[in-house]
Amino acid sequence: MVHKLILVRHGESEWNSKNLFTGWVDVRLSEKGRKEAKRGGELLKESGLKPDVVFTSVLSRAIQTADIALDEADLLYLPVVRSWRLNERHYGALQGKNKAETLEKYGPVQFKTWRRSYNVPPPPIERDSKFSQFGDDRYANVDPDVLPATESLELVIKRMLPYFQDVIAKELLENKTVIVFAHGNSLRGMVKYLEKISDDDIAGLNIPTGIPLVFELDDNLKPSKKAYYLDPEAAAAGAAAVAAQGQKK
Amino acid sequence: MVHKLILVRHGESEWNSKNLFTGWVDVRLSEKGRKEAKRGGELLKESGLKPDVVFTSVLSRAIQTADIALDEADLLYLPVVRSWRLNERHYGALQGKNKAETLEKYGPVQFKTWRRSYNVPPPPIERDSKFSQFGDDRYANVDPDVLPATESLELVIKRMLPYFQDVIAKELLENKTVIVFAHGNSLRGMVKYLEKISDDDIAGLNIPTGIPLVFELDDNLKPSKKAYYLDPEAAAAGAAAVAAQGQKK
Repeated sequence: MVHKLILVRHGESEWNSKNLFTGWVDVRLSEKGRKEAKRGGELLKESGLKPDVVFTSVLSRAIQTADIALDEADLLYLPVVRSWRLNERHYGALQGKNKAETLEKYGPVQFKTWRRSYNVPPPPIERDSKFSQFGDDRYANVDPDVLPATESLELVIKRMLPYFQDVIAKELLENKTVIVFAHGNSLRGMVKYLEKISDDDIAGLNIPTGIPLVFELDDNLKPSKKAYYLDPEAAAAGAAAVAAQGQKK
Repeated sequence: MVHKLILVRHGESEWNSKNLFTGWVDVRLSEKGRKEAKRGGELLKESGLKPDVVFTSVLSRAIQTADIALDEADLLYLPVVRSWRLNERHYGALQGKNKAETLEKYGPVQFKTWRRSYNVPPPPIERDSKFSQFGDDRYANVDPDVLPATESLELVIKRMLPYFQDVIAKELLENKTVIVFAHGNSLRGMVKYLEKISDDDIAGLNIPTGIPLVFELDDNLKPSKKAYYLDPEAAAAGAAAVAAQGQKK
């Protein structure tokens, strides 16, 4: 039995286009991001894949991407489940800061460490920062102890994986085709886990926005073939663009 | 304890604006309908009401209304549950037919009977009609025996009520504020049940599109005060517009 898992990274957000660290700050899609989401829906429709259940983070830009793509693909009716465990990496004290200014202030070594090291989180965000999630109703039903003030990719995987293993895996093992709308780092974590990418090599993995990435998994949820993008050419260009982020001001 | 239930009828659809009987045909919102949904979201935001869980039918126009209104109200992150039991009335063989032409062909008595009688359904739709839901994936997990080929309001209530009593009531009794995005007739059925409106009097109840209707219920889920619209003036105008439907060509 082949189990299908489709991953979609949200389209460009208003803060991506302003080159700000976003993390858990709840910004919306830009106009370009909405177009990317629509294109993702078209690709999904053309592919003939039939998802049975949808997962999203609790951040609006991933949910907007899902809503737009599923509308385009005539799949609005699908059951949807949301979890904070699929959220973007928490960027700690960097949230709300300009990427180019941060690069200038701290230098390329520290900047790259925060962006791409596996286990070095940025400094934690202050609880009373306007960019902290403290007091946000969307986390009202979560044990406050588990909510982060900063995260490395390692910490993202640590909080994402139990959800994948218990909730998403359950749907896959019940032969449901699953589609996940989430974020650069929560999805990198999922790909790292599924493809057993090493802690070092994961730094080189960039997931483009809005282009569905399809996994075909065996009964042990191991990839039975190489995962593929529904638009491989656009995906290659998109991944290169993501890799180049942080340069512009 | 006051339990809050908010009902929202979807905005104008592409077929409302063309004056066609829609029922279970999966048409999208018109541009006007999208604006109504946005206005509904603004009203929700201004009201200070804080829904905890969202219910929708499985028809795209109700889901689009939810997606747009919740985006406007900063509530995209809420858990969402969808059910065919919240669908619009199935209009049987009238689905896809022009309302004014139907009025002309069958006369005002038969027309009014089909539109407003409590227990007279239109003729059933043919299984191979292009306006039948037969073969639609959104009903793939439902016992085919329970899916209608036509419905009166009485039959709508019969299939909607078990869902209200078991699923929506459960959330209310757990002190969740519930918001339901659905349709003229599934919502009329809910209001009839909650306000104990007679089979005769329900014909006179018209629910306007896009304006949240708020119930405050006691621990027995009986209204503890009269239900109210978040924009009473617009609601009165909207209800009058719904009552006048079928006249234009």
